[in-house]
Amino acid sequence: MNEFFREVEPGKAYRLLNHGPTVLVSARHDGTDNVMAAAWACALDFSPAKVTVVLDKSARTRALVEQSGYFVLQVPTVAQAGLTHAVGTHSLADDPAKLARFGVELFGVDGVPAPLVAGCSAWLACRLVPEPHNQQAYDLFIGEVVGAWADTRVFRDGHWHFEDADPRWRSLHYIAGGQFYAIGESLTVVNPEA
Amino acid sequence: MNEFFREVEPGKAYRLLNHGPTVLVSARHDGTDNVMAAAWACALDFSPAKVTVVLDKSARTRALVEQSGYFVLQVPTVAQAGLTHAVGTHSLADDPAKLARFGVELFGVDGVPAPLVAGCSAWLACRLVPEPHNQQAYDLFIGEVVGAWADTRVFRDGHWHFEDADPRWRSLHYIAGGQFYAIGESLTVVNPEA
Repeated sequence: MNEFFREVEPGKAYRLLNHGPTVLVSARHDGTDNVMAAAWACALDFSPAKVTVVLDKSARTRALVEQSGYFVLQVPTVAQAGLTHAVGTHSLADDPAKLARFGVELFGVDGVPAPLVAGCSAWLACRLVPEPHNQQAYDLFIGEVVGAWADTRVFRDGHWHFEDADPRWRSLHYIAGGQFYAIGESLTVVNPEA
Repeated sequence: MNEFFREVEPGKAYRLLNHGPTVLVSARHDGTDNVMAAAWACALDFSPAKVTVVLDKSARTRALVEQSGYFVLQVPTVAQAGLTHAVGTHSLADDPAKLARFGVELFGVDGVPAPLVAGCSAWLACRLVPEPHNQQAYDLFIGEVVGAWADTRVFRDGHWHFEDADPRWRSLHYIAGGQFYAIGESLTVVNPEA
C-alpha cells in the first residue's frame, strides 16, 4: 500500500465504524476472493475491538468467511459509490469476473488471511468469533479486530478529518435503491450540561 | 404527538436506521423511565424488521429493557446534539432527575409499553427477543420492531428527505469526545454498471 496507509491503535479502532458507514466485506478461501457491500455492520466492543456484520445466506462472501474464519470490513468513499453499489448488487455466483468488472483492486497485509480493498479510507481485519446460533438464526456474524488501518488523508491521530479532506473521501451511508448519503459536517458538544 | 408524526410501513422501517445514525434508547419498567444514547445500534432484518443494540451492563436503561421486554430506538437530530450527548454520559443511577435536567420530553403510543422521546425524527418500538448468551457475553440485544413512526418533515413516502429539510433535522453520527458528524449530501448511483 501507499505512504498514507497507517496502522490505527487498537483502542481507537471502533471509531472507524462508530458513525455507521456502509462497509465493504472482503474474504478469501482456497484461492477465491470476494467483496460485498453491507450497510448492517456495527461496532460491538472497544477492547479487544469487536464488530458485528449481517451476511445473508445467499452471499458468496459469507461462505468464504465461514470457511476461512476471517474477513475484512473496510470503509468505502464517495469516490467508490458506484463500486460499492455494484459489488452489493452482483453475486460472484452469477458473475465470476465481478471484481475485475467493477474495478475492485485488492492488496494484502502480512498475517491477514483476507484481502483488503484499495482506495478505501479504513480497514478492520477480523477473526470470526464462531457463534453458530447467531449465524443461522439471524445471519449475524461477530468478528474480533486483529488489525486496523486508515488512510491518513482522512483519518489520523485517532480521528476522522472529513472536514479537511477532499469531499470524495467522505463515507457512504446507504438507504435503498442506489441512494446513499455522504457523511456531513462535524459538530462538537462543548458543554454537555447545557 | 403532532400532525407530523406518522406510521412508517413495516417493510421500510429498516431505512430509519440504515444510514447508521446514533440513536436514543428508551425504556420503562415499574414506573421508572430512562433514555440513553447508543452509537452501536443497527438493522438486523427486513421483515419482520429486527434491530441490534449494544447496552452496557452499567446502563440503567439495560435493566429496564430486561425487566419490561421492550425498548424504543429513536433517531435524534442535530437540534438534539446536546441532549443526546448528555443522556449518553449521565446515568440515572447517579442523577435521578437526569431526564428533566436535560430537557427530555416523553410521550406514549397506544400498545407500546416504553416511552418515546419527543423531537426525534424517527422511532422504532421493539419487543426484546431474549438471547441470554448474547446479552451476557456481548451486551448485545436483539429487538423485533412492533411499530415504526417518523416525522414527515424529514422522512416521508419511505424515504429520508434530509436535503429538503432544515439542517437541524439531520441525523447524528457519534465518534468520541463529544464529536458528532451530521449526515450530509444525498447521492444516487444511477447506473451501477458504470
